[in-house]
Amino acid sequence: MTNTPAPHTPSLRELEHHDAFLERHIGPNDAEIGVMLDAIGYGSLDAMTDAIVPGGIKLPEALALPEAMSEVEALAKIRAVADQNQVFRSFIGQGYYGTHTPKVILRNILENPAWYTAYTPYQAEISQGRMEALINFQTMCADLTGMEIANASLLDEATAAAEAMTLAKRSTRSKSNLFFVSRNVHPQTLEVLRTRAEPLDIELQVGDESEAASVDSFGVLLQYPDTFGQVRDYRSLADAVHARNGIVCVATDLLALTLIAAPGEWGADIVVGNSQRFGVPFGAGGPHAAFMACRDAYKRSMPGRLIGVSIDAEGNPAYRLTLQTREQHIRREKATSNICTAQVLLAVMASMYAVYHGPEGLTRIARRVHRQACILADALREASVAVTGDFFDTLLVSGIDAAAAHAKAAAAGINLRHVDATGVGISLDETTTREDLVALAGVFGAAIDVDALDARAVDAIPAALRRKSGFLAHPVFNTHHSEHELLRYMRTLADKDLAMDRTMIPLGSCTMKLNATAEMIPVTWPEFGNIHPLAPASQTQGYQALVDGLEKMLVECTGYDAVSLQPNSGAQGEFAGLLAIRAYHRANGQPERDICLIPESAHGTNPASAQMCGMQVVVTKCDANGNVDLDDIRAKAEKYSDRLAALMITYPSTHGVFEEDVVAICDIVHQHGGQVYTDGANMNALVGLAKPGKWGSDVSHLNLHKTFCIPHGGGGPGVGPCAVKAHLAPYLPRALGGEGDVGMVSAATWGSASILPISWMYITLMGRQGLRKATQVALLNANYVAKRLAPHFRTLYTGRNGLVAHECILDLRPLKDATGISAEDVAKRLIDFGFHAPTLSFPVAGTLMVEPTESESLHELDRFIDAMIEIREEIRAIEDGRLEREDNPLRNAPHTATMVAGSEWTHAYPRELAAFPLPVLKQQKYWPPVARVDNVHGDKNVFCSCIPVDAYRDEEAAEPAGA
Amino acid sequence: MTNTPAPHTPSLRELEHHDAFLERHIGPNDAEIGVMLDAIGYGSLDAMTDAIVPGGIKLPEALALPEAMSEVEALAKIRAVADQNQVFRSFIGQGYYGTHTPKVILRNILENPAWYTAYTPYQAEISQGRMEALINFQTMCADLTGMEIANASLLDEATAAAEAMTLAKRSTRSKSNLFFVSRNVHPQTLEVLRTRAEPLDIELQVGDESEAASVDSFGVLLQYPDTFGQVRDYRSLADAVHARNGIVCVATDLLALTLIAAPGEWGADIVVGNSQRFGVPFGAGGPHAAFMACRDAYKRSMPGRLIGVSIDAEGNPAYRLTLQTREQHIRREKATSNICTAQVLLAVMASMYAVYHGPEGLTRIARRVHRQACILADALREASVAVTGDFFDTLLVSGIDAAAAHAKAAAAGINLRHVDATGVGISLDETTTREDLVALAGVFGAAIDVDALDARAVDAIPAALRRKSGFLAHPVFNTHHSEHELLRYMRTLADKDLAMDRTMIPLGSCTMKLNATAEMIPVTWPEFGNIHPLAPASQTQGYQALVDGLEKMLVECTGYDAVSLQPNSGAQGEFAGLLAIRAYHRANGQPERDICLIPESAHGTNPASAQMCGMQVVVTKCDANGNVDLDDIRAKAEKYSDRLAALMITYPSTHGVFEEDVVAICDIVHQHGGQVYTDGANMNALVGLAKPGKWGSDVSHLNLHKTFCIPHGGGGPGVGPCAVKAHLAPYLPRALGGEGDVGMVSAATWGSASILPISWMYITLMGRQGLRKATQVALLNANYVAKRLAPHFRTLYTGRNGLVAHECILDLRPLKDATGISAEDVAKRLIDFGFHAPTLSFPVAGTLMVEPTESESLHELDRFIDAMIEIREEIRAIEDGRLEREDNPLRNAPHTATMVAGSEWTHAYPRELAAFPLPVLKQQKYWPPVARVDNVHGDKNVFCSCIPVDAYRDEEAAEPAGA
Repeated sequence: MTNTPAPHTPSLRELEHHDAFLERHIGPNDAEIGVMLDAIGYGSLDAMTDAIVPGGIKLPEALALPEAMSEVEALAKIRAVADQNQVFRSFIGQGYYGTHTPKVILRNILENPAWYTAYTPYQAEISQGRMEALINFQTMCADLTGMEIANASLLDEATAAAEAMTLAKRSTRSKSNLFFVSRNVHPQTLEVLRTRAEPLDIELQVGDESEAASVDSFGVLLQYPDTFGQVRDYRSLADAVHARNGIVCVATDLLALTLIAAPGEWGADIVVGNSQRFGVPFGAGGPHAAFMACRDAYKRSMPGRLIGVSIDAEGNPAYRLTLQTREQHIRREKATSNICTAQVLLAVMASMYAVYHGPEGLTRIARRVHRQACILADALREASVAVTGDFFDTLLVSGIDAAAAHAKAAAAGINLRHVDATGVGISLDETTTREDLVALAGVFGAAIDVDALDARAVDAIPAALRRKSGFLAHPVFNTHHSEHELLRYMRTLADKDLAMDRTMIPLGSCTMKLNATAEMIPVTWPEFGNIHPLAPASQTQGYQALVDGLEKMLVECTGYDAVSLQPNSGAQGEFAGLLAIRAYHRANGQPERDICLIPESAHGTNPASAQMCGMQVVVTKCDANGNVDLDDIRAKAEKYSDRLAALMITYPSTHGVFEEDVVAICDIVHQHGGQVYTDGANMNALVGLAKPGKWGSDVSHLNLHKTFCIPHGGGGPGVGPCAVKAHLAPYLPRALGGEGDVGMVSAATWGSASILPISWMYITLMGRQGLRKATQVALLNANYVAKRLAPHFRTLYTGRNGLVAHECILDLRPLKDATGISAEDVAKRLIDFGFHAPTLSFPVAGTLMVEPTESESLHELDRFIDAMIEIREEIRAIEDGRLEREDNPLRNAPHTATMVAGSEWTHAYPRELAAFPLPVLKQQKYWPPVARVDNVHGDKNVFCSCIPVDAYRDEEAAEPAGA
Repeated sequence: MTNTPAPHTPSLRELEHHDAFLERHIGPNDAEIGVMLDAIGYGSLDAMTDAIVPGGIKLPEALALPEAMSEVEALAKIRAVADQNQVFRSFIGQGYYGTHTPKVILRNILENPAWYTAYTPYQAEISQGRMEALINFQTMCADLTGMEIANASLLDEATAAAEAMTLAKRSTRSKSNLFFVSRNVHPQTLEVLRTRAEPLDIELQVGDESEAASVDSFGVLLQYPDTFGQVRDYRSLADAVHARNGIVCVATDLLALTLIAAPGEWGADIVVGNSQRFGVPFGAGGPHAAFMACRDAYKRSMPGRLIGVSIDAEGNPAYRLTLQTREQHIRREKATSNICTAQVLLAVMASMYAVYHGPEGLTRIARRVHRQACILADALREASVAVTGDFFDTLLVSGIDAAAAHAKAAAAGINLRHVDATGVGISLDETTTREDLVALAGVFGAAIDVDALDARAVDAIPAALRRKSGFLAHPVFNTHHSEHELLRYMRTLADKDLAMDRTMIPLGSCTMKLNATAEMIPVTWPEFGNIHPLAPASQTQGYQALVDGLEKMLVECTGYDAVSLQPNSGAQGEFAGLLAIRAYHRANGQPERDICLIPESAHGTNPASAQMCGMQVVVTKCDANGNVDLDDIRAKAEKYSDRLAALMITYPSTHGVFEEDVVAICDIVHQHGGQVYTDGANMNALVGLAKPGKWGSDVSHLNLHKTFCIPHGGGGPGVGPCAVKAHLAPYLPRALGGEGDVGMVSAATWGSASILPISWMYITLMGRQGLRKATQVALLNANYVAKRLAPHFRTLYTGRNGLVAHECILDLRPLKDATGISAEDVAKRLIDFGFHAPTLSFPVAGTLMVEPTESESLHELDRFIDAMIEIREEIRAIEDGRLEREDNPLRNAPHTATMVAGSEWTHAYPRELAAFPLPVLKQQKYWPPVARVDNVHGDKNVFCSCIPVDAYRDEEAAEPAGA
């Protein structure tokens, strides 16, 4: 043997490289981290951390979590979890139905980072693609419901119904405080309505629809078809409600609406529902896109996001978020809803499902389902089993031994709906096959000759309620029916948008970090996707293990004692947290505690959520450094000592600073009997370094779509777990049909269960050391940006040692004064450089808040910094008179290809400066599809449906020269 | 009950819509088909078909295949097939090793249509992205092997070795006809070498390396490390071979080369191997990207594709396929290889794996594998089990009861390599874990304390062969190590290219039809991906069912009696077909039959394959209509009657016409004792309408990547099954270690097994009716294009009734004469319209051959036609003098964004005409990343590695005006 040991051979343990993922997630490598630490003047990440994080809150020890894992190891681990779920055929219904996700949509939307890593379309010019998909969604919902306008999705049908209730309350002329709810709405809807009505002092009356006409209510909620499948004629009821100035709210089913009369045709004023069955898997309850459609008259008070059509600086049609003044983050304590997140990714999927199938395809699917239901009903009747008539897809079977039926069904791998001891529900859907019909009939001892029954079974939709009106007539729903056409349409839209697969998105307060592929992989496993939210617990052991595991991880990360994963957005988590505080005070005999202190720097959702809980908001001041004013908090806590319910605080502050006083603040609030609510928006600066549950906070919501890697999906889904100390744990939201003082805040027990694997994977992959390092590098990256930009832009607020936390606010106001260039101009100019702008004018108007996150490499940070410096040079050129004040590349940004490649160029600066301000852009250039979008025009001319085709027809082809 | 039967309710059977996929695959819907039939003057698809397809060959009846299926049904069916495979842990090695495909590469390359639907990069300007990935592959292979140049992949290691043999033969100064092959090469390599050597009269001598130095050979082939894992020092052997003017060919392993001395450092002249273990799953044998690297001196005779760097019209670096004169399609009967297809998609994956891991990451993986092997070896030795020394990752265990070991391994879910009765092989790889080491030791009754052994086990690579040289120093391998960086790099490259996810690719003869997502889904299931090609038959029942099923489907589609799926490209299929003919004649005692008649219109591969089979090519004429000249065939068949081996014919002809005489031609050939070989390139015009096996043809190869939907992947993989009549069936290629007169043509028994599900799915989805309709619509689409373009461009050849088959040749030569505008100018101008050009100058120089396929909708066809008409108008403007002859948008096409958005615009036509010749382009525009690529410069300055970074550094930023 000529072999001698090679010097310094690493050991196998070193070579196993369990922290391989950690290095993929964190952008800078160790050498780059060294360079950046040098730049900000620290010798190590720990030294830097000590300089930033107040000693009073810094953790003495590492997180009690396992070590980091490789992607392969973590995927094997979650595979074992998934395998604990059992996938049965589901006929449970109750608002969730089997569906086939077209594979072309699965791969090219749900599994495509161009869609799932996009941000909310606040920057309209780089969001035209997903806004077109969303306006298709709006058109689809408005068309099918027969309403004038629809929004861009809500969180789930139950919360949408609650939003309908409050929209009705503020829109009605009725003086009544009573809302009538049909006892035939879905149980989860009723649960959420109760939760939401009580703090607002709305009285719910639940009863048979026949009673509704005689009740003096400000509104009614009907389900159509109802939860047990009945299709009823509500025309005269609607008239009666209207006669008393009441508002008719309807929860409905989009697929049924292809065959039954649209609610808008028989008197509905507000229509809500779930678009899940348009191609979005069960996912144990979510995420799915709910919708709200309503009369045009309500559009300015409708909750949620609304895409509208405006024009751009060139006069071309362009989409934008319209009527944003409705959004909570602007209205703050005047907000009527705390809705922020939509379910964009799922709404896009549902809209593409409609685009792909078109009106005829959807109708065919509905007819098939209905035919199958008719055949099954007749087969059961012939076997003397009693079933309902007048249905679309759902049969109510009565007079049987339900337990025996469920047992027989289970033995056949089938789930039916539990109704009562003598009845079960059966909902058919797009996935139902002949074999299913045979199996279902068999459960009831019935024989079934499908074709023979098909020949004689009559349709079960009442003649008077058959749909006669058309829908989805716009070409977009009638063109893309071949796979190539749909594939290209989806790519065309994706290409219009800037998402994280092309650039960093340095959004202060809206952390846009890596959404790793390995984290996304389990989401589309059938063992997670094909589980009905009401599947028996014996079949959902995997989900239970996932939920338990994730709750434990989050408890460890936050220092709280209990977590609820039910809230399906950050705002819902906030609401749940405040509900817990409210219930706690009441349980302690202090129902009078209703004052919620909120610093003026807070997210707008905070006061909106407090409003929803019936709390009164008292705003506290901030000092010149942007820090909360301890004295003002003390004064107001004293002033309202008897009524103090809570203080809501964001930490690190929305100004991007670790405030020193947080422990003292907690003490003051507690001294006055209040509870401390810490907004978890900025947890990305804390994980592994400090725990709110340990420094005195009582409750937080987290944003899994921020800190814990659930992708933003273009503006949803989100997950907003609520984490509390032990004394509040009894007041977390209960499960459907479960126990607890506080009701459900979302339609499903586990909220958006099917995306929880993402956060589970992230924490598992990173491990104790990875999570801490991620936080440290997030701090490093922010400070590196602030430092390198310091000669060019002032960072508004800093903490100890002149350092920021995980984000920095660049103050552009002095430049505006000097040159007329606004922060918005800079944001739009960044598009010309291929960047998504940082957060604009939040929390301070006239600023940009930059949060690079830990996932951006030094190369990408430098690319951004270079762009910002170049922009500063352009502003300087205006200051110096080298560029004109009124006609310069910032004011005219972004520049489209048609602008710079047109024969006409009338600007006072060259085309290259417009298009290629840095040479690297000549090799790689993102072209915005539209120029600056006109907000005023859009709000004045609200138009929220697909753009008529002729709007594009007024252009002429270029003519050959001399023609 | 108010229900009455709705009028005309469709039956459940109609509503079940089993042909839903068929409608997704076929572009035009029935209404559009009606419009198009009107345009060409036929009342129905059948009437049109009757007018096109000669009655003598038209099928009287439908295909005996099942009815069409929905995607859901077909996926359930193939799921059941997949589940028949059993996935064991594989330690078999023998050229195939476990690997972890990084999920970010899996999702964003292998499962991303932007990559898999791309075509071969003949149109350089729209292929810069994949060519950059391929030049990374070339650089990776050259660096690791220590050679001067490497190509852009070959089909598999065994055929690469055969290509090395023939390259050596034509490059050597030795007069010897003998090629020495180490008996320690992989068995499949030896098999393919035998198959390839025999018809070329190359004598193979197989023996121990120690004998090689004393043999007078033109070359030797060594395996390094060898098939049993030994790492041997071949330095003095190489010197000895060189001293006799022999050429040293080496088959090697890329991962091992990170630790062992590069073959280029010890005398190798040609190095081949498989890049599979760089992130590409086993897939039961393929597809994977093999490679060939060699001395610079051989670059003009190296087979396969080679990406080189040239410059574009603006002087910027640009990639192109270089030295294309080496390709068979140009050299025809002078070709030295019939290689057409590369394995681009897999080469891209392997290159991205190297980009992601970088030199340090690769080395770490290699070190880990080596450490594990050392630990296992020591554990076995300590248990008195004999194992080899001097290895990288593979141990040869000897002196044991091998059958017992295999049985024990199988019980533990482990596969070992079968060596002999007393020996087994164990190859470790990237996926090997500690648990695997324990299990493996257990198979041999050994205990293993991994960390203890790690501390004392010495490395097993001979000191003299430790690698000292660096590799992969280019920044591309040292930058994209975070997931964000890699994700964005891959997106950047994808965005440079035009693939079918953005536009039709109307390539005559290279059918680019829909590659449906549902067809792609099973490819990445582990039950297909994680099967070693040498896994025991008991574990591959699913693959066997898949192969059997697909063979039967292809038999039914073609009318032949037997099919081999082994050939992993069309050219390989052709070679297999001609080998069958050759063996048949020999078996009949007619070895003298060596004349192969080939019409001058044939694909260039035909004569190249005939050459490889030792046949002599005799070219037959075509008439003025492009049809084969029956009289000339008759004359030559008579002339060579005693020696006639075969006629090779393409049908419908490469001129896009159903020739009437095909049956008569078959008769003539048979009368003279020859066999008829029908090139299956144009099967897309035949399936369901006519069967070559029924009209007199004896053998065909098919191109699954054309007619049967395997995506082109940017230039591979391909699959080229060989289909034969019963009398030739005994002469199909045998399995590895199997029986049969004809040897293997590919390294694996089933060739590119893991992509066979695509074609299986396609045929299953389409069913009897769908396949026929697809063919009819392919004919319709081609005739519609020809008809609408007729006023503008002459279609060169038509058949009966003035109709074309599935493609049409547009004759641009008259326009060139009149205006100087070439077919290439038109091809490049189409890029400005966002289209990939049709086939350029094949089969007739100065023409474009358009094959729209059935998957393109009327909308997409019209979009293409509109572009072509507009281009014709531009040419007319030149004719009329409205545009200049030398400076016009065709000559300068394609136009990049930097050209049209620059301050300088010196052209005699406006910028809009350059960029937006049709108004629709203002809404949706593809910008080519480079201007027209300079072919002459590229061939004069052959440079085939990554572009040095400083090549990009000479540009300056745009300056603010007045700066």
